[in-house]
Amino acid sequence: MEVIENIDEMFKVSRALKKSSETIGLVPTMGCLHKGHLSLLEIAKKECTKVIMSIFVNPTQFSPGEDYEKYPRDFKADYEIAKNAGVDYIFYPGAKDMYNKNFKTFINVEKLSEIMCGACRPGHFRGVCTVVLKLFNIICPDIAYFGQKDYQQLLIIRRMAEDLNLKITITGCPTIREDDGLAISSRNNYLSENERKNAVILFNCLKTALELLKKGGKDLKSTGKLIQKRFEKNKFVTKVEYFDFRDAENLDEIKDLNKYFKRKPRGSILIASAVWIGNTRLIDNIIFSFN
Amino acid sequence: MEVIENIDEMFKVSRALKKSSETIGLVPTMGCLHKGHLSLLEIAKKECTKVIMSIFVNPTQFSPGEDYEKYPRDFKADYEIAKNAGVDYIFYPGAKDMYNKNFKTFINVEKLSEIMCGACRPGHFRGVCTVVLKLFNIICPDIAYFGQKDYQQLLIIRRMAEDLNLKITITGCPTIREDDGLAISSRNNYLSENERKNAVILFNCLKTALELLKKGGKDLKSTGKLIQKRFEKNKFVTKVEYFDFRDAENLDEIKDLNKYFKRKPRGSILIASAVWIGNTRLIDNIIFSFN
Repeated sequence: MEVIENIDEMFKVSRALKKSSETIGLVPTMGCLHKGHLSLLEIAKKECTKVIMSIFVNPTQFSPGEDYEKYPRDFKADYEIAKNAGVDYIFYPGAKDMYNKNFKTFINVEKLSEIMCGACRPGHFRGVCTVVLKLFNIICPDIAYFGQKDYQQLLIIRRMAEDLNLKITITGCPTIREDDGLAISSRNNYLSENERKNAVILFNCLKTALELLKKGGKDLKSTGKLIQKRFEKNKFVTKVEYFDFRDAENLDEIKDLNKYFKRKPRGSILIASAVWIGNTRLIDNIIFSFN
Repeated sequence: MEVIENIDEMFKVSRALKKSSETIGLVPTMGCLHKGHLSLLEIAKKECTKVIMSIFVNPTQFSPGEDYEKYPRDFKADYEIAKNAGVDYIFYPGAKDMYNKNFKTFINVEKLSEIMCGACRPGHFRGVCTVVLKLFNIICPDIAYFGQKDYQQLLIIRRMAEDLNLKITITGCPTIREDDGLAISSRNNYLSENERKNAVILFNCLKTALELLKKGGKDLKSTGKLIQKRFEKNKFVTKVEYFDFRDAENLDEIKDLNKYFKRKPRGSILIASAVWIGNTRLIDNIIFSFN
């Protein structure tokens, strides 16, 4: 496995791989690798002849006051994990190389970036899209892999790729969970022992909403209220940013399920939520498919 | 010469050209070809083994109420001109193919897009950058050619290419002028005979400002006032949007020339202006280099 820090070097290597007709799979990460990343790598290894993993904690997707500075970084550990997972190249650029002092260009996937996590973290997806497009241009992948835990991000990047004629397949990979159901995330590291125990409430509430939907419960308002109460009862839940029912294809909010089913006889409903456990923001989602 | 309307077809052709190690030159146009475009093609023909010209009147760079609908279109005439100029491929996509109904992704080169023409035409450069990036992704050029008449556009696209790691050379080509000095532009077609005669005032004012600079006139405020009066005296000039002195490298406004020269012992000053002649908006610029 080779580590490439220089952007021009990465550019040259990826173009050489393309010339040799390799299929390049890209797994973009912010490091602090966990089982979620490993599952992306596993899928990439199966589908591509070369796997490049980028490790870059991207400053432009953090708002002022967010956890950019304290975001967990451990390159040595990441290196070993990536090597054991069969990664061919780690792309590990510096922030000053990715964003020089004259940098001014940003990508906006409008509307989709303004709701849900985008409403709570203004500018977040603008930063995500910008860095992902830069990585795409440098690495020139055939397929790029993203976790479905960040479902909104996955949809936004897919939209960007199609809108900008990138001809890169954007593959969404299943959310990986701890034994109790908590979605694996680097930010779980922030949780105290008690917070960690209680954090599973997020997945449990999503499951409850899913069960109610499956049983034919079409009153989303009362389901929402029920969930809200359950969150309120848990003193470790310090804030519920959103708990939404949305069309999984375009993120349109679903308010009246009867009307929705009439308009759409088959499809998928995304149940997605962001809550704070203590000082840690966690997101998760679950999908209900119907036909 | 081949005309390609289909985006996927253009994508395939350009990738095949790259595989055969051709150097692709792209001249993006909105059609209505004139001597300005021909000069870009001439330079592209010298530097590249294959020249692709795109013809696309891009809706997203026009604001509501602007001249998108009435913008001159004459594909037959453009075809003959391009053929005679030695163009290898015309890329001529449809607006619905370039922007499908779910389209949501836009590129913003911040700050640079908000001044001068960007202040007068909000969203204009967002539309320009978006379509140019799409064309770059579809056509994959080694070099792309833009006229210096649209100096701000040239700088913005150069910034975008660098920021997004595109590895495409952005070449600026000299402004081509009519015998009296009027910069050639498709929008000159809108001018009545009398307006056309008077339109040269724009270039003449730029020249006057340049002469004053050359002679050592460092009071930009009084130069500006002098120019303003000259415009006011001409009844065909219906509006002066701006007449600016700016650093040609980064478009920073120059207010105090003495201070500027102290900070920057060598460089280039852009004198740029946008004025309306009757109902037609014209832009032009001139550059003063010093060292």
